[in-house]
Amino acid sequence: MKRHGEGPIRIALLGIGTVGSQTARLLIEEREELSARVGRDITLVGIACRNPDQVHYPWLDETLLTTDIEGLCRDADIVVELIGGLEPARTVVMTAMRSGACVVTANKALLAKFGPELYRTSADHGVDLYFEAAVAGAIPIVHPLRESLAGDRIVTMLGIVNGTTNYILDQMTTEGLDFDVALRQAQEQGYAEADPTGDVEGEDAANKAAIMATLAFHTNVVIGDVTAEGITAITAEDIAAATAEHKVIKLLAVIENGERGVSTRVYPALIDDRHPLASVHGSFNAVFVHAEAAGDLMFYGRGAGGAPTASAVVGDIVTEARHIVQGCTGPAIPTYRDLPHAPLDAAKAAFAVRFVIHDKPGVLATIAQEFASHGISINGVNQDLKPTTHDPGYSGELQQLRVVTHQCDEVTLRATVDAVCKLDFVTGTPSVLRVLED
Amino acid sequence: MKRHGEGPIRIALLGIGTVGSQTARLLIEEREELSARVGRDITLVGIACRNPDQVHYPWLDETLLTTDIEGLCRDADIVVELIGGLEPARTVVMTAMRSGACVVTANKALLAKFGPELYRTSADHGVDLYFEAAVAGAIPIVHPLRESLAGDRIVTMLGIVNGTTNYILDQMTTEGLDFDVALRQAQEQGYAEADPTGDVEGEDAANKAAIMATLAFHTNVVIGDVTAEGITAITAEDIAAATAEHKVIKLLAVIENGERGVSTRVYPALIDDRHPLASVHGSFNAVFVHAEAAGDLMFYGRGAGGAPTASAVVGDIVTEARHIVQGCTGPAIPTYRDLPHAPLDAAKAAFAVRFVIHDKPGVLATIAQEFASHGISINGVNQDLKPTTHDPGYSGELQQLRVVTHQCDEVTLRATVDAVCKLDFVTGTPSVLRVLED
Repeated sequence: MKRHGEGPIRIALLGIGTVGSQTARLLIEEREELSARVGRDITLVGIACRNPDQVHYPWLDETLLTTDIEGLCRDADIVVELIGGLEPARTVVMTAMRSGACVVTANKALLAKFGPELYRTSADHGVDLYFEAAVAGAIPIVHPLRESLAGDRIVTMLGIVNGTTNYILDQMTTEGLDFDVALRQAQEQGYAEADPTGDVEGEDAANKAAIMATLAFHTNVVIGDVTAEGITAITAEDIAAATAEHKVIKLLAVIENGERGVSTRVYPALIDDRHPLASVHGSFNAVFVHAEAAGDLMFYGRGAGGAPTASAVVGDIVTEARHIVQGCTGPAIPTYRDLPHAPLDAAKAAFAVRFVIHDKPGVLATIAQEFASHGISINGVNQDLKPTTHDPGYSGELQQLRVVTHQCDEVTLRATVDAVCKLDFVTGTPSVLRVLED
Repeated sequence: MKRHGEGPIRIALLGIGTVGSQTARLLIEEREELSARVGRDITLVGIACRNPDQVHYPWLDETLLTTDIEGLCRDADIVVELIGGLEPARTVVMTAMRSGACVVTANKALLAKFGPELYRTSADHGVDLYFEAAVAGAIPIVHPLRESLAGDRIVTMLGIVNGTTNYILDQMTTEGLDFDVALRQAQEQGYAEADPTGDVEGEDAANKAAIMATLAFHTNVVIGDVTAEGITAITAEDIAAATAEHKVIKLLAVIENGERGVSTRVYPALIDDRHPLASVHGSFNAVFVHAEAAGDLMFYGRGAGGAPTASAVVGDIVTEARHIVQGCTGPAIPTYRDLPHAPLDAAKAAFAVRFVIHDKPGVLATIAQEFASHGISINGVNQDLKPTTHDPGYSGELQQLRVVTHQCDEVTLRATVDAVCKLDFVTGTPSVLRVLED
């Protein structure tokens, strides 16, 4: 660790976008209050950005702005990395820690990719690395996992950790919109970016899932260990079928520590409308935790946005500053367990599969027989809904047939669905959704 | 602080009731895992209880049991106080801290009464005092307030922090029961004690409110600063009237930092059924936080019970043990602000007042005039519901008249209700409930 003297604690801020500007504002406007909480003066010594000439805020002394990241970091006790992306973020953060500075970051992609190296470097150099803002924005989840639940064993975590997709699914549910229309609305409202790929394909949620799994199970989980499925295939018909069964569709990060190892996945799932996660609306996030002793817990709040995310960043700065005053660090990210990763194909789930069929006698029996011959037990079948799909080679009326299974293997389910799709009365692409069971 | 050596960290457990026994079990059964998290062996050196002969558990080495609290504490690095009540708890905890031991406690009454003295002693002697289990059981709220939100300003907190009353109100809502019947059921189910006073009169929630307000606003708030109103006056009619307006009644701890100071109160309130707190059912607890930068947050989970509360206690033990290994302490409970307490009478709220009246022309106009002459603006009036009240001196049909006000002073509201009750067509006792506005 740096030989931090008795002078003010020096903060270097890297990046002055949506979150960076709110972080700078809080550090400047709340300096006195924050210093009281720390027990020593904390001071923002500089802000690195690409184009200092273009940055203007009424509360900002523009002489703080610089393009010299390296020089700024050399002189700081705490480096706050809000530039995002993998490089130069990785090099900057590693260099800062090696030189004895503490780091605060909101960079989920960085942590999900290079977490093991970063956590090790933080421990080796006796400096803090905090990242509350990287998972679910303002929602305190990293502190609770690192500290409050440090005496318990986490069994499962379910997270709605991407506000964009939750907003889109919520709009589809309440307004009956199709995915494309809901996405366009989300873009117009500023809830989705012009290129929404990272959100709607589940990649953003997958990064957060890797970080949460590492903290929850004390083992290294990186982005390459996560299987992610997005929401682009969800249709208004899926939503209608869910509503009819008193369920909602949510994009979930699902983290489990089971017999065959750690499973970290992101997928859209059907959940009961009385489940606490079902009432997470709009762009809000929530993380549901099931721990052996604590039972069920849920954390809810704003998962994105400048001020909420800055609240988490400044909370981390205060925590690290207090440690500097005390001459200590917080708990290292302990990855003392070396748990295996459960193979995806062996993962079990219940499924809701929706087929479009040419309606004729014997269809249900034939499909049920196909599931039975694969050893999958059926929980329920529903043939009420009319599809909007068209089949140009068929003159009769099309019908939807929805099969909900009991728990079964992913790989067996896929083989069964493939077999059913080869039957001559089945048309179109089936919809396959996992069902969260209580 | 004690000169903690390199040997195992020694835990003394005081009390082996519901929470104590689960804490002991976790410390014994999870010793290896917890030691890995701490980075040093942690060991339970003894358990103080009144009647060691009567304590038997398959996992318990009974030689750990002792009646000698003093001797046990003298030899411990961390003293875990789970005996409850004010004495001997206070003396034991103070003595432990003065001798350099860290303390974990779940004792809300102790903290709400002697918090300032305890926090100061902990800071003066450089030892940790943690108490996650004292507020809302297993729900991480103390760590988030002390650390995650350390960079933000909390404006309001609303807590459902008493599981017994939430269970009773929930039963009244879903089953249409009267208070007495719901209470009896809660007692039969083990959700309420034989003497339920502390819960149903709001005292337990008031203790937790004092602790939360101290942490939220960095100022000393003790039980004497809290105004508490329980749920014994809530009737099935109140519940029915709430349901008709898409509202639910919840016993809330309400903590605000307003222009006139800190206001810390406990009362039953009407909240909109779409509010996140409305979906907190049964004996679950939840704490809703509104912070300037973070916006709305909610923390949800089990507020009581042996294993959930023990999870919070053991989390605190791990946190303190990590500090001992590092030779530091966590942040002191900072009460650097000396905020005034807002006078109750000046507190503002919206109210729903239900009068029982002899129905005759002009009644509504007369009551409305009474509110107007006191300067209270009315939001809505409802005269639909029939009361179950009887008035022996009146032969006509009784009716209920329900007035919902806009924000007004507590003291003005009370004067208005008193004046209305003096009108000759008003009978019985009015029901007065605060309305939580969005």
